[in-house]
Amino acid sequence: MAKSRKKVLVLHGPNLNLLGQREPSVYGRTTLEEINKKIMDEGGRLGIEIKACQSNSEGELIEMIHQAMGEFQAIVINPGGYTHTSVALRDAILASGIPTVEVHLSNIYNREAFRQHSMIAPVSIGQIAGFGPNSYLLGLRAAVDHLNQL
Amino acid sequence: MAKSRKKVLVLHGPNLNLLGQREPSVYGRTTLEEINKKIMDEGGRLGIEIKACQSNSEGELIEMIHQAMGEFQAIVINPGGYTHTSVALRDAILASGIPTVEVHLSNIYNREAFRQHSMIAPVSIGQIAGFGPNSYLLGLRAAVDHLNQL
Amino acid sequence: MAKSRKKVLVLHGPNLNLLGQREPSVYGRTTLEEINKKIMDEGGRLGIEIKACQSNSEGELIEMIHQAMGEFQAIVINPGGYTHTSVALRDAILASGIPTVEVHLSNIYNREAFRQHSMIAPVSIGQIAGFGPNSYLLGLRAAVDHLNQL
Amino acid sequence: MAKSRKKVLVLHGPNLNLLGQREPSVYGRTTLEEINKKIMDEGGRLGIEIKACQSNSEGELIEMIHQAMGEFQAIVINPGGYTHTSVALRDAILASGIPTVEVHLSNIYNREAFRQHSMIAPVSIGQIAGFGPNSYLLGLRAAVDHLNQL
Amino acid sequence: MAKSRKKVLVLHGPNLNLLGQREPSVYGRTTLEEINKKIMDEGGRLGIEIKACQSNSEGELIEMIHQAMGEFQAIVINPGGYTHTSVALRDAILASGIPTVEVHLSNIYNREAFRQHSMIAPVSIGQIAGFGPNSYLLGLRAAVDHLNQL
Amino acid sequence: MAKSRKKVLVLHGPNLNLLGQREPSVYGRTTLEEINKKIMDEGGRLGIEIKACQSNSEGELIEMIHQAMGEFQAIVINPGGYTHTSVALRDAILASGIPTVEVHLSNIYNREAFRQHSMIAPVSIGQIAGFGPNSYLLGLRAAVDHLNQL
Amino acid sequence: MAKSRKKVLVLHGPNLNLLGQREPSVYGRTTLEEINKKIMDEGGRLGIEIKACQSNSEGELIEMIHQAMGEFQAIVINPGGYTHTSVALRDAILASGIPTVEVHLSNIYNREAFRQHSMIAPVSIGQIAGFGPNSYLLGLRAAVDHLNQL
Amino acid sequence: MAKSRKKVLVLHGPNLNLLGQREPSVYGRTTLEEINKKIMDEGGRLGIEIKACQSNSEGELIEMIHQAMGEFQAIVINPGGYTHTSVALRDAILASGIPTVEVHLSNIYNREAFRQHSMIAPVSIGQIAGFGPNSYLLGLRAAVDHLNQL
Amino acid sequence: MAKSRKKVLVLHGPNLNLLGQREPSVYGRTTLEEINKKIMDEGGRLGIEIKACQSNSEGELIEMIHQAMGEFQAIVINPGGYTHTSVALRDAILASGIPTVEVHLSNIYNREAFRQHSMIAPVSIGQIAGFGPNSYLLGLRAAVDHLNQL
Amino acid sequence: MAKSRKKVLVLHGPNLNLLGQREPSVYGRTTLEEINKKIMDEGGRLGIEIKACQSNSEGELIEMIHQAMGEFQAIVINPGGYTHTSVALRDAILASGIPTVEVHLSNIYNREAFRQHSMIAPVSIGQIAGFGPNSYLLGLRAAVDHLNQL
Amino acid sequence: MAKSRKKVLVLHGPNLNLLGQREPSVYGRTTLEEINKKIMDEGGRLGIEIKACQSNSEGELIEMIHQAMGEFQAIVINPGGYTHTSVALRDAILASGIPTVEVHLSNIYNREAFRQHSMIAPVSIGQIAGFGPNSYLLGLRAAVDHLNQL
Amino acid sequence: MAKSRKKVLVLHGPNLNLLGQREPSVYGRTTLEEINKKIMDEGGRLGIEIKACQSNSEGELIEMIHQAMGEFQAIVINPGGYTHTSVALRDAILASGIPTVEVHLSNIYNREAFRQHSMIAPVSIGQIAGFGPNSYLLGLRAAVDHLNQL
Repeated sequence: MAKSRKKVLVLHGPNLNLLGQREPSVYGRTTLEEINKKIMDEGGRLGIEIKACQSNSEGELIEMIHQAMGEFQAIVINPGGYTHTSVALRDAILASGIPTVEVHLSNIYNREAFRQHSMIAPVSIGQIAGFGPNSYLLGLRAAVDHLNQL
Repeated sequence: MAKSRKKVLVLHGPNLNLLGQREPSVYGRTTLEEINKKIMDEGGRLGIEIKACQSNSEGELIEMIHQAMGEFQAIVINPGGYTHTSVALRDAILASGIPTVEVHLSNIYNREAFRQHSMIAPVSIGQIAGFGPNSYLLGLRAAVDHLNQL
Repeated sequence: MAKSRKKVLVLHGPNLNLLGQREPSVYGRTTLEEINKKIMDEGGRLGIEIKACQSNSEGELIEMIHQAMGEFQAIVINPGGYTHTSVALRDAILASGIPTVEVHLSNIYNREAFRQHSMIAPVSIGQIAGFGPNSYLLGLRAAVDHLNQL
Repeated sequence: MAKSRKKVLVLHGPNLNLLGQREPSVYGRTTLEEINKKIMDEGGRLGIEIKACQSNSEGELIEMIHQAMGEFQAIVINPGGYTHTSVALRDAILASGIPTVEVHLSNIYNREAFRQHSMIAPVSIGQIAGFGPNSYLLGLRAAVDHLNQL
Repeated sequence: MAKSRKKVLVLHGPNLNLLGQREPSVYGRTTLEEINKKIMDEGGRLGIEIKACQSNSEGELIEMIHQAMGEFQAIVINPGGYTHTSVALRDAILASGIPTVEVHLSNIYNREAFRQHSMIAPVSIGQIAGFGPNSYLLGLRAAVDHLNQL
Repeated sequence: MAKSRKKVLVLHGPNLNLLGQREPSVYGRTTLEEINKKIMDEGGRLGIEIKACQSNSEGELIEMIHQAMGEFQAIVINPGGYTHTSVALRDAILASGIPTVEVHLSNIYNREAFRQHSMIAPVSIGQIAGFGPNSYLLGLRAAVDHLNQL
Repeated sequence: MAKSRKKVLVLHGPNLNLLGQREPSVYGRTTLEEINKKIMDEGGRLGIEIKACQSNSEGELIEMIHQAMGEFQAIVINPGGYTHTSVALRDAILASGIPTVEVHLSNIYNREAFRQHSMIAPVSIGQIAGFGPNSYLLGLRAAVDHLNQL
Repeated sequence: MAKSRKKVLVLHGPNLNLLGQREPSVYGRTTLEEINKKIMDEGGRLGIEIKACQSNSEGELIEMIHQAMGEFQAIVINPGGYTHTSVALRDAILASGIPTVEVHLSNIYNREAFRQHSMIAPVSIGQIAGFGPNSYLLGLRAAVDHLNQL
Repeated sequence: MAKSRKKVLVLHGPNLNLLGQREPSVYGRTTLEEINKKIMDEGGRLGIEIKACQSNSEGELIEMIHQAMGEFQAIVINPGGYTHTSVALRDAILASGIPTVEVHLSNIYNREAFRQHSMIAPVSIGQIAGFGPNSYLLGLRAAVDHLNQL
Repeated sequence: MAKSRKKVLVLHGPNLNLLGQREPSVYGRTTLEEINKKIMDEGGRLGIEIKACQSNSEGELIEMIHQAMGEFQAIVINPGGYTHTSVALRDAILASGIPTVEVHLSNIYNREAFRQHSMIAPVSIGQIAGFGPNSYLLGLRAAVDHLNQL
Repeated sequence: MAKSRKKVLVLHGPNLNLLGQREPSVYGRTTLEEINKKIMDEGGRLGIEIKACQSNSEGELIEMIHQAMGEFQAIVINPGGYTHTSVALRDAILASGIPTVEVHLSNIYNREAFRQHSMIAPVSIGQIAGFGPNSYLLGLRAAVDHLNQL
Repeated sequence: MAKSRKKVLVLHGPNLNLLGQREPSVYGRTTLEEINKKIMDEGGRLGIEIKACQSNSEGELIEMIHQAMGEFQAIVINPGGYTHTSVALRDAILASGIPTVEVHLSNIYNREAFRQHSMIAPVSIGQIAGFGPNSYLLGLRAAVDHLNQL
């Protein structure tokens, strides 16, 4: 009997819906739609099922994580501006118990000082930052490898 | 003619809907439903009317506080992860003018450094932390005693 | 053919819906409705079209800014309690590319230490603080003058 | 055969002997004697035996804690000015192994910066601050509930 | 009998005599003379009398403020480099009791860290920063509106 | 009927009993006995009654202050090593309500960093530091002048 | 042959010319002229010659100290707002080699944080703060006693 | 004519030669030899040539980077303990101009505070941390993708 | 005529009377009595006379040091919780002029941050920490070697 | 036709007029006159024209820099005590656009902490500190070499 | 059958080869050769085998520790200037799993601030500082006692 | 008999071997070889013998300084990236007792914050920074002048 495919939730945080328009010198010219397309393709190559969502609301992101419990085996999250301040998002990840990979398009470590600290990193498996849209694909791969090791 | 019973609003902040599932070594195994049951029972003993709400959204919590004006005489709030960062929630309590008691399930003072500072405490009557679900019951009692002294 | 009038979006952040009731010694006794009336009048004098919105939700404010793209030429924002903490709101202003003026009713520099730092100021054209409802009118004027210089 | 009643030690730290006289705008007008009366009454209601002591000396408070070992099942302590500086008092509580509840008359979180950090809180079960003499009664109740859960 | 016109003192701090030559990418190309012309014109529109002075000396600026007592009803000051360090200038404003508006040509909040703190702001009615020469005109208007409300 | 003479309590904190022996390059060669003699003489000149005590115990100093209530009109205190750390001593002075002058033999502001902050100064009328035994005599005079102005 | 009388220079820093008018709740109602009268009288009692000057300019104060070399045996200075920031004034005192007493009208240690650090104290014999105009008289006395001990 | 294959240098910093033996709860049980085997295999899959070196010496690592200039198109480095302190290593990467990916076996953001800051991250394309030996493989992939985009 | 034996005072600070009972995972299971027995034995081996005292009171420890003057040639002190805060104890050691060795049972440098700073170390000959009861014996040896070198 | 000689302005800041008298252990025994003689001689050797000025006033130094515009090609400045605090002086150098070399007689990096930061260094070509009067001569040479490279 | 003797590695860090010549007021006049002689003698008395090495290179010290694995039962290390900065050395000790005692000739706690923090102490059994060459002998003894307790 | 010529050691720290290639916008286009040529020429003009070495290894630089003892009368060092972190290099200079001049090509005070602090400056005669290769020549001259003054 066939084992069901693993499911990974990809969460895009605030302002990522503007990708491609927003400060292209920092975030590149690829749109969120194009990134989601790449993510789906990579999901296909990795043999997993993927759902991708975006929200500008901290509360909504928290609820998406809650609802992922029991349905998704891993989360890949780009928490955007909430990365640096949100204890509540951190608590949601911890509370959900779902293995989570934190990704960033830009290298947050050569930007403003307030972007160089992540509230999310300590509760993630690991962090991938600086590779543009590729950060998501590497993050997916990292999540799947992590699940395969369990 | 009978004096109408006092009404207290109990607010549960982000992630508290997961209680019982979330990090039981920190937060215990009691669910939010069970805590609300205890709160209602204590309200009965204290002769007050209680409404209990939970929200994962900072904005929603702010609006619940606004709407409490004129209806509730006191608030007992566990601001969860917003405790440490939310100026807006603090301003809502201050703006409402409703006497507020801050409660926490865990002893936030023996946890991570970022949890040891509360934005809410300076605008509350007082703070009760570390007694598990009992923190709420003590908080209710403190709120009622405060109202009786006015 | 007539050139269409400029449009400016005025955004009121959290708790500003309570103006007039909330800590009148700090924020004065004018209500938000009265302020919006003054704003509309000033808009008339300046020959611009104005839309004014209030929200207690960080996510909603972010989306209002996103939706302003292409429709409004400038934003005047009083970010309230989100001024001091919101990286996401800052990113939204930056991402929108819309010239923004930050205003505050009170002089945030003679209040609590945590109110003396603005996450929004570095991505605004400029900041006006301390003049009560007049801060909005000065902000509108500053925005219009800025647009006229482009 | 009857189970012996639980015993709780209530410790009042430095300057609390002056209660009622000392800065009444901060600490209220109730004297220490009156507080001890309330404490004894509450002890009666809770069915426990209580001993209440006051000392202005850090060393004496430490020794009172040492001597409580084997005799008292819980401590309720208002460490007064030693709250913020005393490593030795903290070590005494830890060394005694007796479950301890920290209480404060005033809300230490809206006072001077140096009063907003407690050396004692991390080694206590929990902390109750801001409810005037009622802080002690809530503390007693919290201690008894804690003992009942063991 | 006609009521005498209000008088406002406009003070330009150190290095502002070089405006137009000095770092035009930061401060623009308008000279101090041109700004004073705009200020006088605005004064005419607002129906007030204006005197504008510049000094590179902290001591002289202090004395100009002292001498304004009894003659001027308000001050609009751009304290230049003394903004960030001068306790003596702050004390002069406080001592004079004259309502004062602080203005800056550039947005001091997106410049070097040491420019992001003002010693003057806490003793001013409010602060206007970032609108180039227009900061002075907005400042004048804010000062006059303030006087009209008294 | 003769008005009774004013009484001033002079308190010497820890290690001051060793004066004359202890680090003479810092504290000079005068003994505590000799200083007390000078103090008594100055008391005679000023027409006041003086009691001088020394203690190495924080608790004892606190109790001396408590017992001074109702008997002494002013305190001159050299809190020695407790100057820099004792919240309890600060609270005792505040609680007693007795006008207090803080004195130091050495100039604490050109010594180690930890000696450059006093917990006592903010609750004293004023501070006199650096004049050797003369600091006490100046302190007495300051206390008496203060009482005469009431 | 008669020994010439000692000469002491009394220096009043910025804004002290406004004494009596300036924030009387902080600085009292005595004018600088009245204080200088008291100082001269005290000088008479102490058998010394006194010259008293005021300047709002840091540079002028520095030059007054330079010119005092060879003529005055001691300085009593109230550096006003320059207390907290002026390295140059500190260097002038050090360079002059003249024994200097720092005085303050108000208790700078219970005021704003930035007033609680003195650049001048480490190069003075000692500091006297908080006794109103009496601080000058105590400072004169401290200076004379210091000279008598040399 | 065939285009030559890309070459990537993999650098292992101090103590990584002990992998498998060293704190296996933090770093896992895989040896450096096994990791290098995985790296070579991944290189094969990606069609690139790889050289892997380890050194415990800061100076040697710097020289390996210098010598890579002109020969390698990218570097994947795990700087180990030098991550947090080495300005010289940072300068070497910057000076070489070779695109560099920083990798870590463990999630440095949930370890000691001193491990949560990287001197290397700001001069890298990006950083991958927390995925055990897989961090290297993801890093290789990120480097190759980066080269393909140039 | 025989030269009299050297005398060393061993001082145990607060809570050390509970050794063996107190947090055995940190402080071990040896009681203070057993440690004193080892100390006496080592004293015998080293040919010195030893007196060992314990006190929970800062003031008493200060007086024990004062009284040691003229009788003891060296002190070995474990200042317990006073290590980190007591300026008064530091002053006592300095004032006594007696060579002092600071010892700690536990390695204070891998414990809480507040335990990693000693007020006593800068006025001691040296510090020995982390070797359990053996810290005292090494301290005695260090003290005796120090005396032999004088 | 002969090319006119380059002109360099040498500015001496506060207290440097006292050189030779002032703390000779720190600043040496050479007077300012003697240093100016050396500077003129070096100017002769370097074939440049030199003007040397001293002022104790921040405002005057600023104006000297303003007046140098158009006349001097470089400035060599020893800003004395203004080095560490003067934003206005820094702005004057920046505004003038004249290449400036900062010099110090003493090695400011092994003196008090507050002398180890220069507000002037970031707007200078470079800094030379610690070589006594020779710092000026090296500074002149550095300025001339800089001009020759333009 | 004879049990093989224990082996202890003594490591001297950078600049210790200059002992006796280097700053004798701080480090004394004993040469490294003389210290090694004392160490060997003490090893004889303690019945252990000792190897002593010195290196100025961080990398070499790390490798000496690696090579000690399996051969030495304990390390006594004076990490010299690497004490305060070397994460890599700390990791080497941790990775080796060999019990390590940290020793210092001078009392690092009464020297410059940057010498008062050790990266090595938290991974050592304990630390001995301030006893000159005797620190090594006490360290050897502490190491042997530690091994005997295992 | 002829007095032997003075010898000065010029040390180039890490990455300086890449000069001319490395970040030319910061460090210029001159190679190390060309700088050494200029240094040798200047040595000829100054009548001194020069040896110039470069190393990327902290340990090697330390040993070069050790070996300079007895052979070189002065050192001119550009410590590169080790400037900001190396206690061991600082100790080597101090231990050698050789007068040392610290030089930097770039103005380290207008670069990243971590480059604005030098561990080496406090143990050097003085520091010269910001003049490109000319910094070395000025440094040589400063060293020779220093030697001539001894």
